[in-house]
Amino acid sequence: MCLWGSVMNKFDKAAGLLKQHGIDAWLISCDEGSDMHSPYFLGIKSHARHFIIIDANGNHQVIAVLMEAPMIQKAVDAMGAKVAVRAFNNNKEMVALLKGILARPTIAVNYGEDSLQKATGFADHIRAGELESLRLIAPGTRFVSSVDLVAGMRMVKTPAELAALREAVKMTMEVFESIPTWVKVGMTEQEVMARLHYEFFKIGEPSFEAIVASGENTADPHHNSSGKRIAPGAFYVDAGIRHEQMSSDITWTFWIGGEPPGDFLDAYNALYEAKRVANRHMRAGLPTALADQECRKYLEARGYDHKKLFVHGLGHAIGYDVHDVGPRASSAAPPGAVFEENMVYSNEPGLYWQGRWGLRLEDDIIIKRGECEQVSYNHEEPIVF
Amino acid sequence: MCLWGSVMNKFDKAAGLLKQHGIDAWLISCDEGSDMHSPYFLGIKSHARHFIIIDANGNHQVIAVLMEAPMIQKAVDAMGAKVAVRAFNNNKEMVALLKGILARPTIAVNYGEDSLQKATGFADHIRAGELESLRLIAPGTRFVSSVDLVAGMRMVKTPAELAALREAVKMTMEVFESIPTWVKVGMTEQEVMARLHYEFFKIGEPSFEAIVASGENTADPHHNSSGKRIAPGAFYVDAGIRHEQMSSDITWTFWIGGEPPGDFLDAYNALYEAKRVANRHMRAGLPTALADQECRKYLEARGYDHKKLFVHGLGHAIGYDVHDVGPRASSAAPPGAVFEENMVYSNEPGLYWQGRWGLRLEDDIIIKRGECEQVSYNHEEPIVF
Repeated sequence: MCLWGSVMNKFDKAAGLLKQHGIDAWLISCDEGSDMHSPYFLGIKSHARHFIIIDANGNHQVIAVLMEAPMIQKAVDAMGAKVAVRAFNNNKEMVALLKGILARPTIAVNYGEDSLQKATGFADHIRAGELESLRLIAPGTRFVSSVDLVAGMRMVKTPAELAALREAVKMTMEVFESIPTWVKVGMTEQEVMARLHYEFFKIGEPSFEAIVASGENTADPHHNSSGKRIAPGAFYVDAGIRHEQMSSDITWTFWIGGEPPGDFLDAYNALYEAKRVANRHMRAGLPTALADQECRKYLEARGYDHKKLFVHGLGHAIGYDVHDVGPRASSAAPPGAVFEENMVYSNEPGLYWQGRWGLRLEDDIIIKRGECEQVSYNHEEPIVF
Repeated sequence: MCLWGSVMNKFDKAAGLLKQHGIDAWLISCDEGSDMHSPYFLGIKSHARHFIIIDANGNHQVIAVLMEAPMIQKAVDAMGAKVAVRAFNNNKEMVALLKGILARPTIAVNYGEDSLQKATGFADHIRAGELESLRLIAPGTRFVSSVDLVAGMRMVKTPAELAALREAVKMTMEVFESIPTWVKVGMTEQEVMARLHYEFFKIGEPSFEAIVASGENTADPHHNSSGKRIAPGAFYVDAGIRHEQMSSDITWTFWIGGEPPGDFLDAYNALYEAKRVANRHMRAGLPTALADQECRKYLEARGYDHKKLFVHGLGHAIGYDVHDVGPRASSAAPPGAVFEENMVYSNEPGLYWQGRWGLRLEDDIIIKRGECEQVSYNHEEPIVF
């Protein structure tokens, strides 16, 4: 799999943003997947301690452990990016290399100021002890938050990124359509999850650990796929493929074994229509809270107590991360937040009855000036098998 | 799958450590898997923002988003731990709940002081912006590092944890033995990785993303399984199952298609013997650097330039995390570091020729006062298929 695909050289895009914000460099400090901006920039996953330095003047560097340096050099070369990879053998050499590259007036790091109280969590990756070390190693350097850089890089998608997303969704839909042919009563939820991953890896990779829920477990929106054997009843799959680094995130709710009861069918229909209502309010310039509010109004009018039954927000940004950079499409979104053209969001209303069952229908949409582009689909009637 | 299994109630064990260190509480701040101590304590994976507060006096609490609170309450109840789960609807409620529970003199957080320069990375999970928030929300509280707590909980394994590890290894060995029956020339590395995960999930879960490398890719110790189709030649699988939260981590090197060349067979034999040499120096009371040094001496005597060809340390601690808490079994380990009884380590010498091939043999061992217990195995001769 070519992780970077047709995506443009991100180092150059970032250098442009650095100049615009008057910052000398952007440091990504990463260890065993602690910052997704490492695969974002390198196109591969490095599992050991490494640092990526994006330089406003194009002098990009990576500091990596000797064991991984050749793999990283190969990856950045294949991308056509001019990046010097420097290897270290031990911690002392690593700190010495760091000292050299940190000797600049202002460096951005992936730190979100006061991230529990402000909406800066999307940039908050560096660990407290790491940032403390950087300040001790380079006492003359001012470390600033990368919030504006991360938003500038990832919030609005490029045409190439949107093309990758459409492909990711198409691949996911094909696997979803096959579910009724191989999911059987008596399989465990976990076995279904593993089989989904297997199908996904044959053509791409899972964008997150697939959620498979059956029976009462469907009442938990974020259920952990378990060893529970599937029995006749409600069943949902929340999963997606990542293709050229773009993630899809789709939920289908099924009914297994016999005819679904009337109240299940009614709830399914209400959600299907509520999703259409929401779609009409997901467009450039509108507040990101509005679609959620309208969707809840609709469910209320259909007789559903949304406060009790619809226990999560309507949607979230989607992209390099399955929960990507951008305000939530939810009533709890900050007042000034509005959709912009070519943002990508999930639209996923749900209704959950604890101890009984739950339903969620989730599609991925691209924000446009007019009507949104719904990239994935749910069936108008639940699939029964 | 029962994630907590037979493992003892960790809340009570942690409360004991807190009293011992004169700390009032231990706060785990977690969002989308940012801290593995969340599944460690809860026995399930919570995907949304939540906080776990372990109290020296047993008044344990979890603060979780409304959507996940029932799932978490179910999990802690099933574990037999007395933990109150409090739900929040929005950020304002979350901060208010936090204010209440942070009003104590001293709270440990998973922060490793100066973690790039000191060996505290194993405890460094909280992000810089999160810790900043905690200090702003509770200005009267002293936040200290949890380094001693994490080490006290996880470095030396309990009998139940060792039993789970042995089972995890046994399950992994069964899948490894099946590899020659289903891996075929022409399959992609990624397809093999996905099939491994599928087999793992049927009985447990992967302890990390399996590394599958073929041909030249075997020269990269941390290769990303790729879309490359497997051709006759060297082939390695580095993978493991997590069972009751304990991870196995095993590497076998194979030769696919025809007879392996003499220099491959010689390197395999040298590594097999080097691993035995290392085993003899992995025992309680010995420095964790010694086995690596002795292993390198042996390889040197066999005519291999270990500095150029053996580009990683001999081993690492294994447990809840595949790279667990404990000093590295490597020449770069801090001088005073010694093995203790019932620590678990990987023993994984490797030889890599860039552009040609590489080999690694990795087994998991339990440190004892006398000879170590080698839990997994590699075959004395490479499996050829």
